[in-house]
Amino acid sequence: MTPTNRHAAQIEHWPFFQTAGATVITELLAASFTQLLPRNAVLFEQGEEPQVLHLLLEGRIGLQARAEAGTRTIVEIFGPGEIVLLPAVVLSLPYLASAVVLTEARVTMIPAQLFRDTLARSLPLAHATAELLARHWRLMVDQVVDLKLRDAEQRVARFVGRRVSEEEGAANVILSESRSAIAARLGMTPETLSRALAALEAKGKLRRTPDGATIADRTALGF
Amino acid sequence: MTPTNRHAAQIEHWPFFQTAGATVITELLAASFTQLLPRNAVLFEQGEEPQVLHLLLEGRIGLQARAEAGTRTIVEIFGPGEIVLLPAVVLSLPYLASAVVLTEARVTMIPAQLFRDTLARSLPLAHATAELLARHWRLMVDQVVDLKLRDAEQRVARFVGRRVSEEEGAANVILSESRSAIAARLGMTPETLSRALAALEAKGKLRRTPDGATIADRTALGF
Repeated sequence: MTPTNRHAAQIEHWPFFQTAGATVITELLAASFTQLLPRNAVLFEQGEEPQVLHLLLEGRIGLQARAEAGTRTIVEIFGPGEIVLLPAVVLSLPYLASAVVLTEARVTMIPAQLFRDTLARSLPLAHATAELLARHWRLMVDQVVDLKLRDAEQRVARFVGRRVSEEEGAANVILSESRSAIAARLGMTPETLSRALAALEAKGKLRRTPDGATIADRTALGF
Repeated sequence: MTPTNRHAAQIEHWPFFQTAGATVITELLAASFTQLLPRNAVLFEQGEEPQVLHLLLEGRIGLQARAEAGTRTIVEIFGPGEIVLLPAVVLSLPYLASAVVLTEARVTMIPAQLFRDTLARSLPLAHATAELLARHWRLMVDQVVDLKLRDAEQRVARFVGRRVSEEEGAANVILSESRSAIAARLGMTPETLSRALAALEAKGKLRRTPDGATIADRTALGF
């Protein structure tokens, strides 16, 4: 297979595109292009209007928001198989956050206007869009509850536990983003993140490794 | 007009139903029923599967989440013209939060299965659903940024400023929910909320009234 065909074959298996169907996949991917982007590359800037929709094949992307005072945070981290950012593309509204590449990332881009034109006439694509937006909303609700009700140690345990789950039960969790990006995602300082990881290790809930952690029992992390 | 017709006439003007169109409105509302609910009534419980979709005609509803330890918070407050909770209805998944009536509320309920059946074949309803979900996602992102980057006084100023905006430039903002519900929504204690309101008054940005606040200049609140 050519690299392009290989990427298309990968994307076809995503739940979003399974719902959207073969006709839509062919139409959208015919006009798409794929890039390998280095760490710290910026996919789009807060305040810009979307030009393309991004499909994340490999690597991790952080949504980085800036407030009036110039302070910054990471709103969410997206991994392989995710689509960013449908809300801005659907509404044709400026992005509420920038997207920064946190680890080397391979990204397929679909022109935003083509996506909207296809959405305007395709019921399966509209269903896929509604389902993905509903799932992303639940991610954000979960984070708001996390920030309001759970302490640093509980938040870190759930974050690591979710990575185990994404990687289908793997006992080794690789945290390839910078510690500062993970800390910002969890609403804490990098020092608090380090202390929470050490506390979880002291309790036997995980063991720190050079590139992440090893988990003996996922249920001990709150899952 | 009968009360039922009056509610239907009101709902027809919501952007969601303008996009969904007359045929869908007729189908969905034919099977709907409307109730007036007292403060503290519970529309649904966290963990339940959705039976109906709720359209909020009057009053305010709080999404109340409970964490493992039994602690509770308000994830979001919805006002007149809002629809709760599409994500759970679309995905047929248990609610991530309970919905509690914060002020007397009038609510129209549409059977969830009827909504999903109509969604399965109506492109306009799928578009309306995608747009509403995209907008709700942006509300949650805004709140995450608020919690991570803005101090209590800034959060309170933006909350009051948004109420002015919703009420089309009214200088008097009525905060009819309990102070504890607003404080939880803003991720602070009721005491911190009181101090922030007093600080904003001392700076001339608002004047506290028995049931809310009076705003001289909305732009001074960060808008």
